[in-house]
Amino acid sequence: MNRIEELCSIIKDDINNKTLSATEKSEIAKELNTLISEDSIILAQTNPLSGDVRGNALKAFEWIKWAQRLNVSAVIFPEMFLVGYPIGDFIDRFPVIVEENIEWLEAIARKTDGVKVIIGFVEKNPEHTGKRYFNSIAVLSNGRIERIIRKTLLPNYAEFNDYRHFEPSETDSENRVIELKNGKKAGIIVCEDGWNDKDFFETNLYAKDPVKTVVEEQSPDYLINCSASITRAKKEQLKHNMLSFAAKKYSTPIVYVNQVGSGECLSFEGASRVYDENGELIARAKSYEEQFFIVNPEKKTGIIYPLPAGLEKTLTEQKAFSLDHEPDLERTYLTVTQSIRDYFKKCGFKRAVLGLSGGLDSTVCAVLLADSLGAENVLGVSMPSSITSSESKNDAKELAQNLGINFTEVPIKDMYSTTRSKFDTMFSEIEKFWDCRYKESFTNDNIQARSRGIILWGIANEFGSCLPVATSDKSELYMGYATINGDMSGGYAPIADICKTKLFALAKWMNKNRALKNAIPRSVIEKRPGAELAINPKTNKPLLAEEALMPYEFLDEVIWRVENLQQSMGDMIDEEFLYEKKEPVSGEQKEEWLKKFFRRMSTSHYKWSIMPPSPIVDARSINKAEYRHPTIASKINYNKTSFEEKLKDLKEETVLNP
Amino acid sequence: MNRIEELCSIIKDDINNKTLSATEKSEIAKELNTLISEDSIILAQTNPLSGDVRGNALKAFEWIKWAQRLNVSAVIFPEMFLVGYPIGDFIDRFPVIVEENIEWLEAIARKTDGVKVIIGFVEKNPEHTGKRYFNSIAVLSNGRIERIIRKTLLPNYAEFNDYRHFEPSETDSENRVIELKNGKKAGIIVCEDGWNDKDFFETNLYAKDPVKTVVEEQSPDYLINCSASITRAKKEQLKHNMLSFAAKKYSTPIVYVNQVGSGECLSFEGASRVYDENGELIARAKSYEEQFFIVNPEKKTGIIYPLPAGLEKTLTEQKAFSLDHEPDLERTYLTVTQSIRDYFKKCGFKRAVLGLSGGLDSTVCAVLLADSLGAENVLGVSMPSSITSSESKNDAKELAQNLGINFTEVPIKDMYSTTRSKFDTMFSEIEKFWDCRYKESFTNDNIQARSRGIILWGIANEFGSCLPVATSDKSELYMGYATINGDMSGGYAPIADICKTKLFALAKWMNKNRALKNAIPRSVIEKRPGAELAINPKTNKPLLAEEALMPYEFLDEVIWRVENLQQSMGDMIDEEFLYEKKEPVSGEQKEEWLKKFFRRMSTSHYKWSIMPPSPIVDARSINKAEYRHPTIASKINYNKTSFEEKLKDLKEETVLNP
Repeated sequence: MNRIEELCSIIKDDINNKTLSATEKSEIAKELNTLISEDSIILAQTNPLSGDVRGNALKAFEWIKWAQRLNVSAVIFPEMFLVGYPIGDFIDRFPVIVEENIEWLEAIARKTDGVKVIIGFVEKNPEHTGKRYFNSIAVLSNGRIERIIRKTLLPNYAEFNDYRHFEPSETDSENRVIELKNGKKAGIIVCEDGWNDKDFFETNLYAKDPVKTVVEEQSPDYLINCSASITRAKKEQLKHNMLSFAAKKYSTPIVYVNQVGSGECLSFEGASRVYDENGELIARAKSYEEQFFIVNPEKKTGIIYPLPAGLEKTLTEQKAFSLDHEPDLERTYLTVTQSIRDYFKKCGFKRAVLGLSGGLDSTVCAVLLADSLGAENVLGVSMPSSITSSESKNDAKELAQNLGINFTEVPIKDMYSTTRSKFDTMFSEIEKFWDCRYKESFTNDNIQARSRGIILWGIANEFGSCLPVATSDKSELYMGYATINGDMSGGYAPIADICKTKLFALAKWMNKNRALKNAIPRSVIEKRPGAELAINPKTNKPLLAEEALMPYEFLDEVIWRVENLQQSMGDMIDEEFLYEKKEPVSGEQKEEWLKKFFRRMSTSHYKWSIMPPSPIVDARSINKAEYRHPTIASKINYNKTSFEEKLKDLKEETVLNP
Repeated sequence: MNRIEELCSIIKDDINNKTLSATEKSEIAKELNTLISEDSIILAQTNPLSGDVRGNALKAFEWIKWAQRLNVSAVIFPEMFLVGYPIGDFIDRFPVIVEENIEWLEAIARKTDGVKVIIGFVEKNPEHTGKRYFNSIAVLSNGRIERIIRKTLLPNYAEFNDYRHFEPSETDSENRVIELKNGKKAGIIVCEDGWNDKDFFETNLYAKDPVKTVVEEQSPDYLINCSASITRAKKEQLKHNMLSFAAKKYSTPIVYVNQVGSGECLSFEGASRVYDENGELIARAKSYEEQFFIVNPEKKTGIIYPLPAGLEKTLTEQKAFSLDHEPDLERTYLTVTQSIRDYFKKCGFKRAVLGLSGGLDSTVCAVLLADSLGAENVLGVSMPSSITSSESKNDAKELAQNLGINFTEVPIKDMYSTTRSKFDTMFSEIEKFWDCRYKESFTNDNIQARSRGIILWGIANEFGSCLPVATSDKSELYMGYATINGDMSGGYAPIADICKTKLFALAKWMNKNRALKNAIPRSVIEKRPGAELAINPKTNKPLLAEEALMPYEFLDEVIWRVENLQQSMGDMIDEEFLYEKKEPVSGEQKEEWLKKFFRRMSTSHYKWSIMPPSPIVDARSINKAEYRHPTIASKINYNKTSFEEKLKDLKEETVLNP
């Protein structure tokens, strides 16, 4: 670590924990000033709390005071910092929040001096026409609000809902450019405003391009982009290439400030950075950490912190499904652990309880929880039924020991048998008036899963500050292979956006990369997954998930194709899957699996709608913050059939002879 | 019923069930043609199924064939009919659905003749810039797509998400006007396009006003508005006044076609209608029913079916909270019963099972379910614990008998005691490593509620076509007074948008207005609500909800003020509540209740996020289809305190001396 890094790290601690005395502060400022130039700017890569306007404002004060001590040119906060992103719909229902953010903005402005403060807030729209608010950036200096810049491009896809709340603004390029201490001009861009280059993207969501307008009309010395942009698979690559492209295209350095920390389902990875006028990266902040980051867009040197391992090397990778998850595992691990940590902390919880089945899902969850919350704050409960194998019980216990988490075993045989015997009587009673009793049902499987739910929620009800955790994974959620009020139920669902093949890879990666190696017992990674809720009559052993569903390698590629290529079943039939290169799959088999996929997915939307909050990890997800599907829409034809086929089972006259 | 009504009713049956022979059809057409004029138009007030493009298209064919038999001027479908509203996000993820809707549109076009077909569909945007789709209306005639009109104003608030998926279009007024058989010109407006009159609304969401543009530039003989607009408290009054205002202002008749039926959380009430050029209502279709509705905007006579009782008389009512729910009860009843019926049918279920506690919530749910699905398809389960009173048990049984629904009693004492004794051991174990065991907890209360959940879900797992029902009401959801995996859990939640005081009124209304009077035992309506999960140590009787919360009359007004007036706590302290007019409430008491409200609401957002689908009923709701609030945002200051107060507990130097 060089001396600048060291001092910045001390300052970051002081901002959050007030660790320094007045004398220490002034000494550090003095020393740091000898190492940086006066036209430096500070990127406030920081983690706001949604809705906590006062808390965010007080945090901003601490940053600003440091900028003033250092007498730099500016301190820059992320988009919407004062209100704290994400906002859901709360500014629409509770305008008192917006009032408060304006009061604090004005209070902050009163205390500014020559150092410019560039900070995101929610601005009221004074007009009678249009939405009530603007997504704005205020430039504060010399005791007043010098300038307000309003966002022009308002994203409204996936996790974004800007246009729901905000009025889009014209790109008033003159207003967007501010003068800094050394006379240099900086053009301010708000997040999405910087994502619409017509030469970079094949298609564009918006007609306007604020970057182009500002650069061509005002020729700023550099651009500043205030963002709140989440991490997703492949997004770093896109972001890097795009920012670099724009800097080079316009021969204009770009300073990019990003939020860090997680807000419920959204994880912001920080990694704020600067590109020079040739599109070269000259400085990049840490990923997944708050950082007091000093940069100078006019100098070609800076500190470049590494991205999560694997991301750099895939910058040019093709858009194709791969079973090599390695390049995305550290990012995945950091995204989920940050999400767990922030979700618990921001909601006021510190402990988690989860069922440990000895299977992959609960095992991976336990490791992630231990690493996020501390082993002492995690309780794993083994809840064997009569179907649970002794291997599974042992694996659960061994894992808990390895991780050092708390562990207890609570057999559920008595709960199951009490309920089961009650059910026998009850069902005979009901059969007197209702037909349609299933010959084979999931009733018994689910009694087990739901009894476990009662135990975990009971612990959370009895002990303060504790949340139960849902262990469902993405592959199984697509298939509806999860029990309502059972494994699906909890206060948070850490792995709901991670597919099974990636979970296996992540388990191996954690065994290799965590300080404590091989915490996950080998047998957990080697055995084939199964819920251990029912016996397969064919094998007389617990039913395996792949027997009930289809091979995970195939399933995960179907999911990938749906989310990333938006393919229909017909498209998929026409293309070769990775799995097919390894194993022979007949056309009938492939069609059967695909039909099963779409059939099961069609009846799983309700389950998606009642899932607990969970972190978005993949490029696309079924997280409620991103994707919504009406439960009633179960008769969709996902197959790209010809029109003739669509008519096939109709009597001709129905359609053809009006 | 007059003869036209009679014949139209027969036609509606034929459209849905193919009840008529070719001869009968031609006879009916012949007779009806003597009663209506050739320049009549048919309003296809119909109920599409989201995503079922083929099903919706085949339905459209039936309507169109009837229009052709009658040789009228046009048949008009609601907005987005082919794809079926609501769409969630499925057209973005599954473009195959859009392809299919275009194939069917073309197939329908090929079969049109002189009768114009005006029908909503999803159009692909051919440009590389902008969103991928348009929300469009196609005009079909003489074998081809004559014209496509694209929606201009794309709502994106509350339940609306148009701008998420669609590119807004310019108001090309010339394109919007079509010529009908008699040479008359009709200007086509798409739903929200008609909701932006600058003289009617105090504030406007959009700068453009397509109605004004079309009328002023093209002087059409009348306007046709194709809509998919949901029912909400007070919305009929707004809609009527607005449409009437516009028709009069522009001296132009307006034909308004609305979807009917429910899509998950959204209920469309139909009530399509025509206003003449003086703003007088001259025809109105039924509410909450599909209808083959023939109108003639150029004639001043038509059939006006009644609105739900109460709506008419409140057309000019002030915006203030009222405990007189009477004017909204029939609408509420019809909205919820339509929603239950359609949700079950569209999801492929026919039966419901619910817990009958003898309390108000489950009682009202049982009546609504019986009326929606048929008594034989409803099973009420009484699940007494040791706290359940014999009165409650009797009330549950009596209700079931009165309604004629199936009934069974399943005591849960053994499930409770098995779990409870297990918990005792487990908690002692956990106390060895975790502190913070609550002195008083809800653990025991919740074991009861969750054991009941296991029983209801077990029945749904064992018997085909059956969904369990969640009985939580809106007042209690605001307070988080509902058990996760207990009364909150189910496949559908019929009364989640109805406050407690309104539920009492609805219960009385149903006792008076249902064919079978007084099905609800008087004691259910007279006793004060309580969950019967715990004993109040002060009274030694089961704890009453109002003891745990606050008076429902007060609570419901707080909710109303939050949703309708967007008031802060400070606003509410300054204003007098209805409850205060009746009962003396000290300032401290009022503040205590309000603080409790906001504190409890702040920690209830997670519960809202995992609620099952439920019908939106009120003017504003906490339904997920409308309102989202990040769970992490629990530190919001809902009180409009002065800035000095906000700083009060801070050391002065923190903020004031940078």
